[in-house]
Amino acid sequence: MKKGFFITFEGPDGSGKTTVSTAVAKRLQEKGIDTVYTREPGGIEIAEQIRSVILDPANTAMDSKTEALLYAAARRQHLIEKVLPALAAGKVVICDRFVDSSLAYQGVGRNLGIEEVLSINEFAIEGHWPDKTLYLDLTAQQGLDRIAGRQNKDRLDQEKIDFHLRVCEGYQQVRERFHDRMIVIDASKPADQVIDACLEAIGALIDREVR
Amino acid sequence: MKKGFFITFEGPDGSGKTTVSTAVAKRLQEKGIDTVYTREPGGIEIAEQIRSVILDPANTAMDSKTEALLYAAARRQHLIEKVLPALAAGKVVICDRFVDSSLAYQGVGRNLGIEEVLSINEFAIEGHWPDKTLYLDLTAQQGLDRIAGRQNKDRLDQEKIDFHLRVCEGYQQVRERFHDRMIVIDASKPADQVIDACLEAIGALIDREVR
Repeated sequence: MKKGFFITFEGPDGSGKTTVSTAVAKRLQEKGIDTVYTREPGGIEIAEQIRSVILDPANTAMDSKTEALLYAAARRQHLIEKVLPALAAGKVVICDRFVDSSLAYQGVGRNLGIEEVLSINEFAIEGHWPDKTLYLDLTAQQGLDRIAGRQNKDRLDQEKIDFHLRVCEGYQQVRERFHDRMIVIDASKPADQVIDACLEAIGALIDREVR
Repeated sequence: MKKGFFITFEGPDGSGKTTVSTAVAKRLQEKGIDTVYTREPGGIEIAEQIRSVILDPANTAMDSKTEALLYAAARRQHLIEKVLPALAAGKVVICDRFVDSSLAYQGVGRNLGIEEVLSINEFAIEGHWPDKTLYLDLTAQQGLDRIAGRQNKDRLDQEKIDFHLRVCEGYQQVRERFHDRMIVIDASKPADQVIDACLEAIGALIDREVR
């Protein structure tokens, strides 16, 4: 069975994940590598419907565990309908956020517990972990400075700062736990250097010159 | 803290759960016992939205695990918004189907595995198991005869029969595993006798004459 390569991007808010991962996917395509760029819910109808339940502003009563189960459900469907078929076709799949985000944001940020959030996600992904995860590394303070820089600083209230710090602590635990899967990229540098570092790492993984 | 009594009704299709549980709840109310009758999604807005994703006939591509996660999410929200507040107010809560149904229908009927479906439901209910479960007991064949009796017999194809048999096998495992919680009621008798047997069991539990 032909088998592609599954790469996820992770990192706290402000780490530049979306900018970097889209640029990396574009470059891989330019280099002739059959690449799918995606992020949940990824245009998958069922996953989009689930996402709209999560994001409905009328749903103020939503419990954190309900939300975590809905994210896991949307992840499952996106994996089954989009990621696995692309991997089966031998493609490189670049996914902006995956299980690690739920562990950091919901497991630690929302205080649900990493083990508990991991268990429902293990049910959802059924062993289909990424081959490698590029972790865009920033200190918690660097992340905060970048978030503050791109919005009205007054909105960065203490609750938001505390949540950000918990998420960074969560990612730290995730990195230690899954260290074999993690490739840590210094995300404090300018974007083009971060993109180059990611391309170099991916090139080594798939044994191709892609920078 | 005041604490009510949480009773669920379970049993395979054809066992008369809905008829019996609604009659039981009505009688408890007539006897002056503050009783909430419910079944998921129970009018809870978020749970109703989740249910409509599950039941949308356009969602033919829905994976069984996605569905199991969605049921668990709807269950969580219904529990948090409806069941727990009623129990905290000291009420008797009668719920038509709960975790055991997912274990039997999805864990065994859909072949997802009881342990796996149990693990996501344990995340969802966080230890809030029913105080007691009234299991309406029928043989697999009696259940089939009743299902066949209420619809065009031709529609009862082999796939449906096989699914029903797996669900019955699943309930058998659930009954053994949670035998301390289960009260088995012979559901092969006429409905009024089944209702009386349930009322007798509940009366003993809450120490009231309710027949």
